[in-house]
Amino acid sequence: MQYSSEAIERLVEMFSSLPSIGRKTAQRLTYYILRQDTQYVIDFSKALINLKENVKFCDTCFNYTEISPCPICASEKRDKTVLCVVAEPNDVLAIEKTNEFKGKYHILHGVLNPLEGISADDLKLKELIARLSDVKEVILAINPSIEGEVTIQYIAKLIKPLDVKVSRIASGIPIGSAIEYSDEATLSRALEARINVVF
Amino acid sequence: MQYSSEAIERLVEMFSSLPSIGRKTAQRLTYYILRQDTQYVIDFSKALINLKENVKFCDTCFNYTEISPCPICASEKRDKTVLCVVAEPNDVLAIEKTNEFKGKYHILHGVLNPLEGISADDLKLKELIARLSDVKEVILAINPSIEGEVTIQYIAKLIKPLDVKVSRIASGIPIGSAIEYSDEATLSRALEARINVVF
Repeated sequence: MQYSSEAIERLVEMFSSLPSIGRKTAQRLTYYILRQDTQYVIDFSKALINLKENVKFCDTCFNYTEISPCPICASEKRDKTVLCVVAEPNDVLAIEKTNEFKGKYHILHGVLNPLEGISADDLKLKELIARLSDVKEVILAINPSIEGEVTIQYIAKLIKPLDVKVSRIASGIPIGSAIEYSDEATLSRALEARINVVF
Repeated sequence: MQYSSEAIERLVEMFSSLPSIGRKTAQRLTYYILRQDTQYVIDFSKALINLKENVKFCDTCFNYTEISPCPICASEKRDKTVLCVVAEPNDVLAIEKTNEFKGKYHILHGVLNPLEGISADDLKLKELIARLSDVKEVILAINPSIEGEVTIQYIAKLIKPLDVKVSRIASGIPIGSAIEYSDEATLSRALEARINVVF
């Protein structure tokens, strides 16, 4: 495809390199940016540089933060005896959105995946164990995939000797979804994990 | 939603401001960029600034270009007697991809839209008329929407006194699609514009 400008081609390529952005979307985004004023482009460019310069890992939970410990780790209002373990920083955002969880977090930065060569040493597991002295419950909020299951079992075994309760978030039929359209794995898990109806 | 960093929030907002990028995608993109090295972020930032600094309009066809006239307008190999009129620069990319069209382009930068206050003066129409002295055919490659139809009729009337042939690209059933699933408007247009089968 012939572009009338190398500068356009370069930004289309940058956008295409992002996950879930195909070449056509990258073109549309580039043309959108061409129509914006100079200040918009400067702001966008600064936001990128600023992100990389200022954002680092929290030394405690390993979430992204500008100051370490991060606001959640530093907060006195949050229950430090309950630790929610997640695979990725985005998972924290999703859980925070529920406004249900008032404990602290620990980010593993991945799940065990022998095929991709991700072993226990690649995850923040030693750092998790080191945090457990004041902790009463570890909630594993890890995706119910094969790798997630393996990681959940691995962490549960690791924590077992330490006399800390280990739980995992429930799997089942999503709210608003239908039994008819649920896959067998989800449905059998939902049956297994059935709970008493209280009168 | 609480972010652990203002720098993250700012880039999420920049990505969200782009068309077709929702907040969740913007988050995913921002976290993706956090995982890249510094060079990647510098390249991305430069591509943005570079785009705005170097890309301008071609004085002839009004496509985006770094040098005016743009490579297509400057090319001796392209037939300057056939002019393809499009609404937006992206349309040029789509047509160039076919490798079918060997003439030159003219970009209107919009279509007539009274509801949004876009009148003939907002489009590059005077500039189109000024280019027609050597032109034998004007091909209107404008989306077959209501606004597009109005624009096509308007341009056809405008050019009529100038003794230049005016054509429009065909509407009909897309290749690979089925009659069964075509909407009535497309199907009646396809029937109307039927062509003889040559033996």
